[in-house]
Amino acid sequence: MSVTDAMQGLSLIGWRRGARGAISFQARNPATGVLLEPVFFAATPADVERAAALAEQAAPAYAALDGQARGAFLREIARRLEGLAETLAAVVPAETGLAEARVRSELRRTTDQLRLFAAVVEEGSWVDARIDSALPDRLPQPRPDLRSMLQALGPVAVFGASNFPLAFSVAGGDTASALAAGCPVVVKAHPAHPATSELVGQAVVDAARVLSLPEGVFSLLFDDGIGVGQALVRHPAIRAVGFTGSLHGGRALMDIAAARAVPIPVYAEMGSVNPVVVLPGALAARAAAIADGLVASLTLGNGQFCTCPGLVLALDGADYASLRARVVERVATVAAAPMLSVGIARAYADGVADMASRSGVVRIGASGERAGDADGVCSGAPVVFETTGAVLRERPEIAHEVFGPATLLVRCASADELLAIVARLDGQLTATVHAQAQELSAWPRLVPLLARKAGRVLFGGYPTGVEVSHAMVHGGPYPAASDARTTSVGSAAMLRFARPVCFQGWPDELLPPALQRANPHRLVRMMDGRVENSD
Amino acid sequence: MSVTDAMQGLSLIGWRRGARGAISFQARNPATGVLLEPVFFAATPADVERAAALAEQAAPAYAALDGQARGAFLREIARRLEGLAETLAAVVPAETGLAEARVRSELRRTTDQLRLFAAVVEEGSWVDARIDSALPDRLPQPRPDLRSMLQALGPVAVFGASNFPLAFSVAGGDTASALAAGCPVVVKAHPAHPATSELVGQAVVDAARVLSLPEGVFSLLFDDGIGVGQALVRHPAIRAVGFTGSLHGGRALMDIAAARAVPIPVYAEMGSVNPVVVLPGALAARAAAIADGLVASLTLGNGQFCTCPGLVLALDGADYASLRARVVERVATVAAAPMLSVGIARAYADGVADMASRSGVVRIGASGERAGDADGVCSGAPVVFETTGAVLRERPEIAHEVFGPATLLVRCASADELLAIVARLDGQLTATVHAQAQELSAWPRLVPLLARKAGRVLFGGYPTGVEVSHAMVHGGPYPAASDARTTSVGSAAMLRFARPVCFQGWPDELLPPALQRANPHRLVRMMDGRVENSD
Repeated sequence: MSVTDAMQGLSLIGWRRGARGAISFQARNPATGVLLEPVFFAATPADVERAAALAEQAAPAYAALDGQARGAFLREIARRLEGLAETLAAVVPAETGLAEARVRSELRRTTDQLRLFAAVVEEGSWVDARIDSALPDRLPQPRPDLRSMLQALGPVAVFGASNFPLAFSVAGGDTASALAAGCPVVVKAHPAHPATSELVGQAVVDAARVLSLPEGVFSLLFDDGIGVGQALVRHPAIRAVGFTGSLHGGRALMDIAAARAVPIPVYAEMGSVNPVVVLPGALAARAAAIADGLVASLTLGNGQFCTCPGLVLALDGADYASLRARVVERVATVAAAPMLSVGIARAYADGVADMASRSGVVRIGASGERAGDADGVCSGAPVVFETTGAVLRERPEIAHEVFGPATLLVRCASADELLAIVARLDGQLTATVHAQAQELSAWPRLVPLLARKAGRVLFGGYPTGVEVSHAMVHGGPYPAASDARTTSVGSAAMLRFARPVCFQGWPDELLPPALQRANPHRLVRMMDGRVENSD
Repeated sequence: MSVTDAMQGLSLIGWRRGARGAISFQARNPATGVLLEPVFFAATPADVERAAALAEQAAPAYAALDGQARGAFLREIARRLEGLAETLAAVVPAETGLAEARVRSELRRTTDQLRLFAAVVEEGSWVDARIDSALPDRLPQPRPDLRSMLQALGPVAVFGASNFPLAFSVAGGDTASALAAGCPVVVKAHPAHPATSELVGQAVVDAARVLSLPEGVFSLLFDDGIGVGQALVRHPAIRAVGFTGSLHGGRALMDIAAARAVPIPVYAEMGSVNPVVVLPGALAARAAAIADGLVASLTLGNGQFCTCPGLVLALDGADYASLRARVVERVATVAAAPMLSVGIARAYADGVADMASRSGVVRIGASGERAGDADGVCSGAPVVFETTGAVLRERPEIAHEVFGPATLLVRCASADELLAIVARLDGQLTATVHAQAQELSAWPRLVPLLARKAGRVLFGGYPTGVEVSHAMVHGGPYPAASDARTTSVGSAAMLRFARPVCFQGWPDELLPPALQRANPHRLVRMMDGRVENSD
């Protein structure tokens, strides 16, 4: 019996399976239109209740585990996912239309990510231990001994993303960072890749069981509608939400969370147009290379990244004309490719049609191949639009995300016009500047302005390719993300799922090890305001 | 002409005064009922608009200042407040009923707080600089150079608190931490102490002008209703909100902020009952001393602190009877004292009457003096209630905050009953345990449970007296505060008003100094995941 034959199409509620309820659905191969086996059953209200209650029960015991134990869990998940590599290399492409090579590299990214969080939690300094020594003789009042550290928030609801079926889905960045922080996780699987979700979810459950973790530390809920996810976000046991997807979907969850009797934080990464500003010096020096890089970034993963460059701003002139011509020429050579799902393909077609219909916007280039989702074959082809700075300055709403390989070139009449457009942009995940280093001094407002708009500001390069590291910021002002104070990628993502607790006046032996005098885990800690590295 | 004669009763909008609008009000001396001069005029919609617009304009220039310049501003404010000490020692007691000695110590706390934030921002490591070095030879893809640091969110709206007319009002902790983080501040003054607010606000404006800071870095708006504050929170220029006050008021601001086109964070510190658990060993060893400490904490500042101990849990028995008798005896000796305002005195009287009317709750002790707000004389006297664990377990809503010197003793029949009550408590600012160190091992669930409920957990001692330091956490799960991930007191309060930005691939000389290779400010930074102290 193969691994896929073992799939049951049922939610994973702690160590047990969810109900075979009234609502069922099947995934569809977006490249062929073929319905895929098995049938999946949406979680019932009782399933949601049980997953949340188990997570609540598991929370204290799981949070009390030390960093080594949580690290071991993350490493065991990574090991088991590697064991599923061949299965995933077949199942994920069938559900997502992604190429096998992409799936293998995304698996690597997913296991690397799990191990990065394992390393951070094993080392332990992420808890931000702070110690203010007692000052018993201080006047007019003595100062008590104060020691603070981060602790887990409690159960987290994670929504699998369609466009990273491994790296931002069931055992992706949100799940890994929440588990690392000490929070049980209840995942709402994305309905476009349920078999992938079940395989990965079972691997997480197996890892938890083999390490004797408390039941409920992880559950996985299926649904092809919005009811299960909404019920989860409303559930009192849930203390935070991780989401990657559309602005519409993310805002709906934010509104539900804010309206709860006890509001909770929602970390929604909702995408952006990722403006690329090409300054005159760079345009003169390397218009062709920039055009090639732009088209490669635009069409990577068929444009289905939240960091896809959807807006390019430059000053009009001969160099701009060269850039434009080269972009059009290169895009024409890129074949249409499957999109992730029928829904995404339709939304892309609608978004392209809407953009084409706007006055002042001209479709100037496209792939030679036609795109469409007739017969369930969800093909999407790159397209290039152009407008003028004058039009965009008047109607800034034109610069909105069309999820897929579409971009808008903007011919600006002047530096002031370009800056005025940038000043009115919505919040962005990324903003990129191509410039000769010396020419930036003539644009003193540009970089501070972009830094106010975006979570990540690039000098040269292209916004796709989000490194999983310590300094990464994948987030940004709304509507790029719900909470600009956080990142959903990189080790700092753990900080989303923790809060500080201060212990006042405790005997040393009753304190958590991170706060004890002897610093047994040799953490970096703040002592009376000064950060001390123990070695 | 004295300082108070110079008061105009008009909002401070940047360097200018607000309008003499249609709505005016006067403060009232809560101890005497006498209306105070001058008349204050509520900010007009145009005033609010101008304050917000000036703050937005000032934001980039103010955020771009280095830590030395922001520190100098905070120190200049502190210096000017010290220059106002004699004036404030007269004006604040008249507006608040607080004793002059308390006002002088609160002024010291306020200036210490300003200087603590100055020191943190001058040192500079708070920006959490993180550097991931480029790995140009990494396969399959090279890693770009990634460098992140915190930067200011933008203009912050601060609501002055009634109970700390200096330390949590116009130039209090929220304002100081936002200014330190690089954010302009628009304060909505509390209507109970407008003259204090105008004096302090003018000192902040004068400090900003003498240091040639951009106009709009600080404004102060008067209103005795809710319209100005709501308009401010709705204004697109405002990027975050700091509030200390009631749950009702805080939640209203949270709801407004969450409903904006661009939602913003609200940091509302809304108070709690601050449970004190007295375990049998401690009760046997020192019931009288604990009773004395409790009553002193309960009646400090006439109970008008959000950390006032409003709930005391212990096991029934002879030692509990001793504690109870001593609390009743001590409370009877405490005189009624003025409350901060008519509104607070009325709410306290209503809260006490409501508590007394609940079945199963008995009023067992009180000050010998009667309290009331007849003729505007806002006197409040301490009162002690008692109930049983069985009653509270059945109706946990009884354990709610009555703002003022009221507390509820809970006789519990068993450890299980006590733990069940704690498990159902709402989020708290603080939780306190009195225990013999060795007896806690018999209560293994208690401390983890309290740590899940509260922002600060005390071993011994009493919750009043919130140290302004690095390890302090003044916050906690909702409804104690709106955002348990943050503190409103202590140096970490600055982190509320900043977000990380990542710079990718930038030439060293174009980076902010905090991220440059040479580390010119000698900051503590994270280099490839390892925290490095430069000295």
